[in-house]
Amino acid sequence: MNILVWNEFRHEKENEVVSDIYPNGIHGAIAGFLEGEGHQVKTATLDEEEHGLTEDVLAETDVLLWWGHKAHDEVNDEIAEKVKQRVLDGMGLVVLHSAHFSKVFKKLMGTTCDLKWREADEKERLWVVDPSHPITEGLGQYIELEKEEMYGEHFDIPAPDELLFVSWFEGGEVFRSGATFRRGRGKIFYFRPGHETYPTYHNEEVQKVIQNGVKWAYNQGTPKHVYGNAQPLENISEK
Amino acid sequence: MNILVWNEFRHEKENEVVSDIYPNGIHGAIAGFLEGEGHQVKTATLDEEEHGLTEDVLAETDVLLWWGHKAHDEVNDEIAEKVKQRVLDGMGLVVLHSAHFSKVFKKLMGTTCDLKWREADEKERLWVVDPSHPITEGLGQYIELEKEEMYGEHFDIPAPDELLFVSWFEGGEVFRSGATFRRGRGKIFYFRPGHETYPTYHNEEVQKVIQNGVKWAYNQGTPKHVYGNAQPLENISEK
Amino acid sequence: MNILVWNEFRHEKENEVVSDIYPNGIHGAIAGFLEGEGHQVKTATLDEEEHGLTEDVLAETDVLLWWGHKAHDEVNDEIAEKVKQRVLDGMGLVVLHSAHFSKVFKKLMGTTCDLKWREADEKERLWVVDPSHPITEGLGQYIELEKEEMYGEHFDIPAPDELLFVSWFEGGEVFRSGATFRRGRGKIFYFRPGHETYPTYHNEEVQKVIQNGVKWAYNQGTPKHVYGNAQPLENISEK
Amino acid sequence: MNILVWNEFRHEKENEVVSDIYPNGIHGAIAGFLEGEGHQVKTATLDEEEHGLTEDVLAETDVLLWWGHKAHDEVNDEIAEKVKQRVLDGMGLVVLHSAHFSKVFKKLMGTTCDLKWREADEKERLWVVDPSHPITEGLGQYIELEKEEMYGEHFDIPAPDELLFVSWFEGGEVFRSGATFRRGRGKIFYFRPGHETYPTYHNEEVQKVIQNGVKWAYNQGTPKHVYGNAQPLENISEK
Repeated sequence: MNILVWNEFRHEKENEVVSDIYPNGIHGAIAGFLEGEGHQVKTATLDEEEHGLTEDVLAETDVLLWWGHKAHDEVNDEIAEKVKQRVLDGMGLVVLHSAHFSKVFKKLMGTTCDLKWREADEKERLWVVDPSHPITEGLGQYIELEKEEMYGEHFDIPAPDELLFVSWFEGGEVFRSGATFRRGRGKIFYFRPGHETYPTYHNEEVQKVIQNGVKWAYNQGTPKHVYGNAQPLENISEK
Repeated sequence: MNILVWNEFRHEKENEVVSDIYPNGIHGAIAGFLEGEGHQVKTATLDEEEHGLTEDVLAETDVLLWWGHKAHDEVNDEIAEKVKQRVLDGMGLVVLHSAHFSKVFKKLMGTTCDLKWREADEKERLWVVDPSHPITEGLGQYIELEKEEMYGEHFDIPAPDELLFVSWFEGGEVFRSGATFRRGRGKIFYFRPGHETYPTYHNEEVQKVIQNGVKWAYNQGTPKHVYGNAQPLENISEK
Repeated sequence: MNILVWNEFRHEKENEVVSDIYPNGIHGAIAGFLEGEGHQVKTATLDEEEHGLTEDVLAETDVLLWWGHKAHDEVNDEIAEKVKQRVLDGMGLVVLHSAHFSKVFKKLMGTTCDLKWREADEKERLWVVDPSHPITEGLGQYIELEKEEMYGEHFDIPAPDELLFVSWFEGGEVFRSGATFRRGRGKIFYFRPGHETYPTYHNEEVQKVIQNGVKWAYNQGTPKHVYGNAQPLENISEK
Repeated sequence: MNILVWNEFRHEKENEVVSDIYPNGIHGAIAGFLEGEGHQVKTATLDEEEHGLTEDVLAETDVLLWWGHKAHDEVNDEIAEKVKQRVLDGMGLVVLHSAHFSKVFKKLMGTTCDLKWREADEKERLWVVDPSHPITEGLGQYIELEKEEMYGEHFDIPAPDELLFVSWFEGGEVFRSGATFRRGRGKIFYFRPGHETYPTYHNEEVQKVIQNGVKWAYNQGTPKHVYGNAQPLENISEK
């Protein structure tokens, strides 16, 4: 499996709090715990040429992880469209935290993907609401994060195909924080936690979920449909 | 529309706290706010003959509301089966609070319908997660109840057809507290709040949700399918 | 309820077969059977200024029906975007036949919305697969159309929130021909039949489905969510 | 992975047409193509003691396949209940053809699971409607079976969690012939074809689907939830 971890990679350059937590960038941290198990893991970032998302790179990527926050608008429209098309053609996509507002995710969802948020060092508990799903393998009843940014409902997404986690926040909100969507031949997993000022991606249970999510999103050869004008069965053509 | 409100009606006879809140029984309170709008509203309780659920009564009921808690086992198996069949045949069903453990609901769901619970006078916030649904009409972003019993995930139900509310509880839990299910020709709405020692059914927003739920569950003449051995189209029979 | 029927209105001007079937245009035929029952029904077409879809018109429309086929590209991008936003804000949308390829529907779905098709005067049977849904009220087990264009799977849409009809075609294909989607506060109903060279919109069962669909899509005041930076509960702000 | 193939095993003993097609029984044929890939495959049949479904056998089974037709009533109620509970506890279940009417499947669905049927040597085409799903891996756009029994809608099941295949039949019917359901910690896959008088289980594409289904249904350690009276977070207990 060829994995690509894409990161905006701006907070790490501008904020010491973030670079102290993620000295190799958020992408480096994520790539780190995805390596092993025989996967090929690469990274790409916003400021690389074509954001590191050339057609060749996309064509050979099986699962793409996306982290972005403050520079969604700087992602080139055509490249966002190419990434979307590659998902429809079968590439898995794992959408992390504030990437709910990325161009790629919004295009795929068709909604605003808006939500409530608050930075107040709140405790988060991600409760497993679907204990049959492979993305929850190896977990307990919930994941507890001592401090995270709050994301609250209403989360303006289509009803997920599968709802895996619902978060509780100290301040009174809930959030559908783990959800899957199928679009075309592609599988998409949205996973909420991961604000840049907290060490969330160093949490082993968070890592386990992302590892599981990548495996789940991998398409190993599902049918390619033909579209357009179709041939009839013989009995029709003979009419 | 003919509405029937069914109540176990035991707590009210045994516990003054409950009878003070609901002097006419929980069924009486619910029937009270459902009357008007031209509906015909009747009630039935566990200790009536056949639990007040004779075939005639079921046949003429369009939407049944069910509240039960401590005496689920005393509901006759055959009557529970008849109620289930009537739902499959098109009667709407509104399942309230602890009726998650009623025989009828468990038979319709096929799962244990188990959950976590705690009686600790906790604040509950029911967040609207589907603001397009008629059951949420007339509400704000959430319903807040100062004190309620806690119900927590995992709620062992099939993934709902529609998830309308997710509850937040002070003590750290979340719950899918408003959900719909379609079974056969029948529509089912589960709505969580309503512990007997709190005045929840006097809350106007809770009343609004139940009124909306009853309207939504009403089946005004959907197709009756024929099952079993089927006639072919002509071209097949001529083979 | 304010209903707006939008039609491309090109085939009727260029093809006598079509204008013979729909002398007042497809929009005229549809508006005709939607009037009555106290609804206010208006029409709009592609060649009107702003396609007849000014902000004022959209703001006062409760449910929009859309028929388009050969001129999807001529719909202005900004207007398509405004229509989409109005759906997310609560306007119902009924998407008819070849409008599966309209800009508005594709934006809302996030997929290609592609499919197979064939013009071969084939019999179509639309089987009801959800007999609990209000859109199927008044129907039998299926709707049979003697001759229609074939649409075949794979239909590249997100898994519908509700699947109501599946079509059988003489030539060997099937199609998910009645499906609902919720996006934001808006409800969307896609209904397959209605090729311009057949008198499909004169069929009373097809009319019944569209009447039901319009009623179902009408949003009578669901919650408006607030998004963005959120206030905490008191106990958090006191930390 | 420990796989158990359960078969009623009656037709094969009573009908030479069937025993000619399946000399080792339907269970033998299915076990045959599931072996390899390192799986441990066993079989069990109705007339064995406890139907070959002792608690020990169930406890060590990861995925159970079920074929039954004419003797559903002879399956002991308590054993059916135990199988159901084992599914809720995480055992995968693959339900084949006429097992739609098995006690286990009906208990898990909560509906009648009824349908239309016809034995008329009709052609069946199983169209893939979800080309992103691992159960469709390795397939083309559809599977064609020259002759099969017809199953037609309405199929009285809950709306599937995932709809994978829709069948077309020569005689005018359609059927949701591949569908998944999650119940508790268990995953269930229903797959339609497989009437005993046709060599359907010798078809390589059918075999591929069942192999994929077994892999998909395998639960490798998802969370075990605790139910009942729950401990609060500290801040609540301190009130």
